[in-house]
Amino acid sequence: MRVLSIEAKKYIGKKIKVAGWVNSRRDHGKIVFLDVRDRSGILQVVADSEMAKDIREEYVVEIEGKVMERPKEMINPKLETGNIEMKAEKIKILAEAQKLPFDLKNLKLSLPKLLDFRPLTLRNEKQKAIFKVQREIIDSFRRTMKNLGFFEFEAPAIVASATEGGAELFRVDYFGRDAYLAQSPQLYKQILVSIFERVFSVCKAFRAEPSVTTRHLTEYISLDCEMGFIESWEDLLEVCETIVKNMFADVEKNCKEELKMWEAKVPKIRGKIPRLKLREAQEIIFERTGKDKRGNPDLEPEDEREICKYVKEKFDCELVFITHFPTSKRPFYTFEDPKNPEYTLSFDLLFRGLEIVTGGQRINQYKYLIKKMKKFGLNPKNFKYYLQAFKYGMPPEGGFAFGAERLTKQILGLENVKEASMFPRDLQRVDVKLEKKK
Amino acid sequence: MRVLSIEAKKYIGKKIKVAGWVNSRRDHGKIVFLDVRDRSGILQVVADSEMAKDIREEYVVEIEGKVMERPKEMINPKLETGNIEMKAEKIKILAEAQKLPFDLKNLKLSLPKLLDFRPLTLRNEKQKAIFKVQREIIDSFRRTMKNLGFFEFEAPAIVASATEGGAELFRVDYFGRDAYLAQSPQLYKQILVSIFERVFSVCKAFRAEPSVTTRHLTEYISLDCEMGFIESWEDLLEVCETIVKNMFADVEKNCKEELKMWEAKVPKIRGKIPRLKLREAQEIIFERTGKDKRGNPDLEPEDEREICKYVKEKFDCELVFITHFPTSKRPFYTFEDPKNPEYTLSFDLLFRGLEIVTGGQRINQYKYLIKKMKKFGLNPKNFKYYLQAFKYGMPPEGGFAFGAERLTKQILGLENVKEASMFPRDLQRVDVKLEKKK
Repeated sequence: MRVLSIEAKKYIGKKIKVAGWVNSRRDHGKIVFLDVRDRSGILQVVADSEMAKDIREEYVVEIEGKVMERPKEMINPKLETGNIEMKAEKIKILAEAQKLPFDLKNLKLSLPKLLDFRPLTLRNEKQKAIFKVQREIIDSFRRTMKNLGFFEFEAPAIVASATEGGAELFRVDYFGRDAYLAQSPQLYKQILVSIFERVFSVCKAFRAEPSVTTRHLTEYISLDCEMGFIESWEDLLEVCETIVKNMFADVEKNCKEELKMWEAKVPKIRGKIPRLKLREAQEIIFERTGKDKRGNPDLEPEDEREICKYVKEKFDCELVFITHFPTSKRPFYTFEDPKNPEYTLSFDLLFRGLEIVTGGQRINQYKYLIKKMKKFGLNPKNFKYYLQAFKYGMPPEGGFAFGAERLTKQILGLENVKEASMFPRDLQRVDVKLEKKK
Repeated sequence: MRVLSIEAKKYIGKKIKVAGWVNSRRDHGKIVFLDVRDRSGILQVVADSEMAKDIREEYVVEIEGKVMERPKEMINPKLETGNIEMKAEKIKILAEAQKLPFDLKNLKLSLPKLLDFRPLTLRNEKQKAIFKVQREIIDSFRRTMKNLGFFEFEAPAIVASATEGGAELFRVDYFGRDAYLAQSPQLYKQILVSIFERVFSVCKAFRAEPSVTTRHLTEYISLDCEMGFIESWEDLLEVCETIVKNMFADVEKNCKEELKMWEAKVPKIRGKIPRLKLREAQEIIFERTGKDKRGNPDLEPEDEREICKYVKEKFDCELVFITHFPTSKRPFYTFEDPKNPEYTLSFDLLFRGLEIVTGGQRINQYKYLIKKMKKFGLNPKNFKYYLQAFKYGMPPEGGFAFGAERLTKQILGLENVKEASMFPRDLQRVDVKLEKKK
């Protein structure tokens, strides 16, 4: 029976079998030190040089031997198994490895190279750490949602038409007909509010974003939720805040090592996340920079960074809600502010200069929704399926969505969102650069 | 503050506010009984007819009133809140509902109609129950995987090429180049074994299945796992068995009401699930039916049903592993049986006459894999990315995948797998029938 390296300390003085990859090999005359890496960590193995003569880095090996306590002066406090080592008695090669094309333990690659070699570079501990943090983010989202009574669903990827306008949509050849990849699970999560009241999904969203930026992926992980029977759109901000606070607390608690590797700290949120209306934010930016964006329908990336700087200085907070985006620029289903219908009860959440959440209250009244569709030049007939949910009684509701890769990027301070996607897709890349069509 | 119907019994004698959909309205002269449905259940509300005069079925209402104990003779044991009712003092309409096109509480619709009206028909308790069971299946899979040390990942949907041959593949127009929808996360989960040893994914798989059957969806939920450092391919059968046993136990424990609605029982598995080699199964079928399928590379649907019948009779078990499929008919990465290389160390799991799992050991040796690719007419150059995982050391490994909708169908005894997909896609349908191309 194989023993994981983390469990080896239970077997001091006993013979066990471990298996893993050779993380490093250090030759000391007749003795060789092999660090064996498995899913639980690293174990130092001492072998005689003859026994280990063929073994190289990244070989997959199975080693039988005796677990020994290390002498005090040899203890390695950086390693969880640093107080023990194994004296190898038998080494079996399970798989060989070719010579590595670069130093895997100390990666110094350009982003394209890092991604070209993704299956290999993910073996690097620091790269792997990105996805342990991302996993914690997603798991934390799921836990909070379940605790709040939200029902999870698996959102469709193939859809019949554009959700929020026709741009940035991937077309699928669907048995000779046209279908598309979902830009978001928006219409489905709304439908499901009329069934389960509160729903969420960890799903893929697809955007045919034609530009190369540090913040866009063509396929990304969307953490979506939608909530019925809200008393006010501010209920949404509160649920959003709860999710974020839990995420940060969970990452801080469960990803200590990973945060350390990236020299990253999760933000402290004391009290409430500040809230600014779009127009207020633009006014502040104008005052601070002299740049007049007061008529713009949205914040540009440099505005997002500037307003986050302001909020950090003024409120010592690294997050800020921007609210009340113009009606004309938000999707048809967005609820208008009764006090000023030119603006919507919508919001973005910015985190360290980047939008990580978009959401808002939705129109739940059938007649109002139909009217709004027509105003937006949409034909209600094309939305007959979706509209059933409203025709037969939909409570006041709203929701929002996180981009999981963006959150990961911002927590760890990565330069490009692609680093936070295990297998990132962009304008040219699907694993590798796509070949041009013949 | 709104109180959920399930919580109302804590407020006997007190005034509270509830909100939900009007599940039914029963008029008794000056008094009206309204059953109000929310995400926790149903509460009976008594209102005077004047107050309730506008209220119809599926209206969304908010009701204030006093919680009363029902007299003993009026207790409804079928309802979790059957010992109480609310005396309405104020009813507020949150949203109106149009007249229903059919009886929502007693659905008698053809499958196409059921699906055309999916947003509405999902409000039916029995329909909703399907997806509560499915949720339990998926959650149970996730729990077992995590307990066994498997790392969850979000598998890509857009891929650069066919995983397992070019058929049944949806093409995506990817910025003027060709990309495809993933038939399975196969290559990615294998890559990730070289990083995390044990991985799983709850993901979407896509099959451009051109025929209409009761067992195919073009987009389905795949419960995928892959496991390194196996000592034998039979380790996979054991993990698979553990997952299945846990699923059945969890569904039995947590979906009592749902199983009752469908008059369904989860199977009891005593000891091990029987295992038959494909050729043995075909021999048995020949003996039982006289139909000679002994040369076939796979079981046909009628064979799957027949062999399950046999196993039920012989072993009193509703599941059976079929193993050792021919090498020529399994994907290139499948491990050959060292004892007879014409067959592979692969398996299907059949449940009540339907395949719900496919899996097997994979080739982990780089050179062997290259050789096998060439034998299958594949160009290793096109798999350079994937092959990195093997070039730099891959342990012996294997894995398998469940179809979540098929499992749901078989547990509940549904006639068509589409009933077990919230928003099923098929040859013609993406929510509604797709329009022909102009």
